[in-house]
Amino acid sequence: MSQKPAIYKGLENIYIDESSICFIDGFKSKLYYRGYSIEDLAANSTFEETAYLLLYGRLPKREELEEFKGLLRENREIPNEVIELMRKIPRDVHPMEALRTIVSYLGNLDPARSDLSLDGMHRKSIALTAKMPTIISAYHRIRTGLDVIDPDPRLDHSANFLYMLHGEKPPELWARAMDVSNILYAEHEMNASAFATVVVASTLSDYYSAIVAGIGALRGPLHGGANEEAMKQFIEIGSPDRVDDWFKSAIAQKRRIAGCGHRVYKSYDPRAKIFKEYAENFVKIYGGELKNIYEIAEKLEKLVIENLADKNIFPNVDYWSGIVYYGMGIPIDLYTPLFALSRVVGWSAHIIEYVRDNRILRPRLYYTGELDKRYIPIDQR
Amino acid sequence: MSQKPAIYKGLENIYIDESSICFIDGFKSKLYYRGYSIEDLAANSTFEETAYLLLYGRLPKREELEEFKGLLRENREIPNEVIELMRKIPRDVHPMEALRTIVSYLGNLDPARSDLSLDGMHRKSIALTAKMPTIISAYHRIRTGLDVIDPDPRLDHSANFLYMLHGEKPPELWARAMDVSNILYAEHEMNASAFATVVVASTLSDYYSAIVAGIGALRGPLHGGANEEAMKQFIEIGSPDRVDDWFKSAIAQKRRIAGCGHRVYKSYDPRAKIFKEYAENFVKIYGGELKNIYEIAEKLEKLVIENLADKNIFPNVDYWSGIVYYGMGIPIDLYTPLFALSRVVGWSAHIIEYVRDNRILRPRLYYTGELDKRYIPIDQR
Repeated sequence: MSQKPAIYKGLENIYIDESSICFIDGFKSKLYYRGYSIEDLAANSTFEETAYLLLYGRLPKREELEEFKGLLRENREIPNEVIELMRKIPRDVHPMEALRTIVSYLGNLDPARSDLSLDGMHRKSIALTAKMPTIISAYHRIRTGLDVIDPDPRLDHSANFLYMLHGEKPPELWARAMDVSNILYAEHEMNASAFATVVVASTLSDYYSAIVAGIGALRGPLHGGANEEAMKQFIEIGSPDRVDDWFKSAIAQKRRIAGCGHRVYKSYDPRAKIFKEYAENFVKIYGGELKNIYEIAEKLEKLVIENLADKNIFPNVDYWSGIVYYGMGIPIDLYTPLFALSRVVGWSAHIIEYVRDNRILRPRLYYTGELDKRYIPIDQR
Repeated sequence: MSQKPAIYKGLENIYIDESSICFIDGFKSKLYYRGYSIEDLAANSTFEETAYLLLYGRLPKREELEEFKGLLRENREIPNEVIELMRKIPRDVHPMEALRTIVSYLGNLDPARSDLSLDGMHRKSIALTAKMPTIISAYHRIRTGLDVIDPDPRLDHSANFLYMLHGEKPPELWARAMDVSNILYAEHEMNASAFATVVVASTLSDYYSAIVAGIGALRGPLHGGANEEAMKQFIEIGSPDRVDDWFKSAIAQKRRIAGCGHRVYKSYDPRAKIFKEYAENFVKIYGGELKNIYEIAEKLEKLVIENLADKNIFPNVDYWSGIVYYGMGIPIDLYTPLFALSRVVGWSAHIIEYVRDNRILRPRLYYTGELDKRYIPIDQR
């Protein structure tokens, strides 16, 4: 064998393509979708508009946005067969694993599933984006023994999700918080789940195969699962006066602090800042247990920044998002599905972009084993 | 933004890890599993023994192999709920897309689905390897309106698959050809589907999420789908005397020759050579239409080697495997599922190996779009 080549573990800082979808400046706490800062979008835009921006590369005119919102509304319903399958999934299955099966089956039922044209990919992206809130709320209601609630066409994407989940129209703050959450989670460059989707799409496989891979990757605690782990960690700590001891012991045991640190951000995640503001608003209104969790999170954040900032470890988006969800009564094991609910837009944009100038993703492994071993008959081993 | 970095399209020749599973010498037509040459394994080993070798890193002693075969036999059955789901998948869905849904649902039903321990991963790898022939044969019989056939514990892995598929015990040549096929397709380093599985597993997601991603990647015509494309191409050509014209026109139109060319092999694929020998045996015995297809393939192969060898394009494993399957009466759209049937072993070995020294796979994209665009209110766009 030849000389040992460089090994790029985790593909850290390896660029696999050019892109015009998303830019992260990890040292300056900046995030842009198609050139627009995340702060601008969170303050001024809606999820629907942001989804259009990500998929088509520019902000829509009013008529274009109305048409796009119409398509999203029309595509919200899911086939009865999918509801039936949900009833056949054991209730203790993590909702992300259920989502993997459900979206795969939804793909089986889509007559246009093999259409790889640009237009077909856009249509499938819109249809699946529209259906994600319906799938997640329906699955949650089924597993908790509640009736499934049909989408309400008078409500926008995020408000309609909360309505289908809880069975009542959400307060305005909730609807806006959910919408901002969906904006913040819609896209984040070539993270592990987006990467999984393009690895699959690069074989010219179908859209659903790619998305299902993204769901599988997002499920992992080192990726989307982190928002659930962060909330479990706050609950485990239990009260603000136990934060110091917990942190000391975590550092001593070299435990990872859930929701902190990021492959690309080496500074405070700009999305975390926006989620934190929403969390503050919720705490002001609702107080109680939410206030307790917020204070734990805030105290822990201070310790993380004081002690770990020199290692470039800061709270990331998953640190604060859960507190907003908790304020809206969303069960912890739906936090990662909520991530998927809007990230499907970013995945779709990357699949479409990658496949237009496609090259199958096929790296190498450096072989360190023996060679030319002699095959020995079984009774002589 | 800083200077433009190198872009590694397709991650060609980028090494992502060390490995002791598989070595391909693409210039010398050599392939080794755990140090044993593919020719030795195809001549002397069985699928079960090769699966043990790939999963545990060494050839088993007799008692170990018997125990391993026992585990494979015991795990062949699939839950009734899975059979019920198969009946709910539209019959025109490609079996690979059905397989994606079925394996995902099988994961939902596995009580040990979240067990990421080494022992748990081995147990799940064996259980799924055991179930793949049952899944694929049952799904095929359901979609064609036939009764599902239970596994026969007296038959080995590959013979039992053919029995469950066709409803009769296979001739010895078929059983051995199927077994050799399963040996040849069991593993092939960090190809796109194995890569998809480790991208997902690197987030510390569960085993089934990783495997489902592999199935999705294998479905693509640039990867596992190629064995189906190769056979369709021979059928499209129709007769040996049309090969010359077809090839000329394919070259003129810059059409890809299905089953030819490979990211790693720059010489004749050693697996193709073995499959070709089996194809010759089948042709000698069965003649007829199979002989016609074989002659087309052989004539086309000559033209490919004469004309494209200087571009390092040679027939690969997917070129000749279909002719053997065709000889055993296997429908063309089961060729890629057959690939998955045995590749699940290689995927499992890579997941286990990668996660033991894990690093989340998260590359970058080089942003080429604008920055700091001003958000313009919708009616001013």
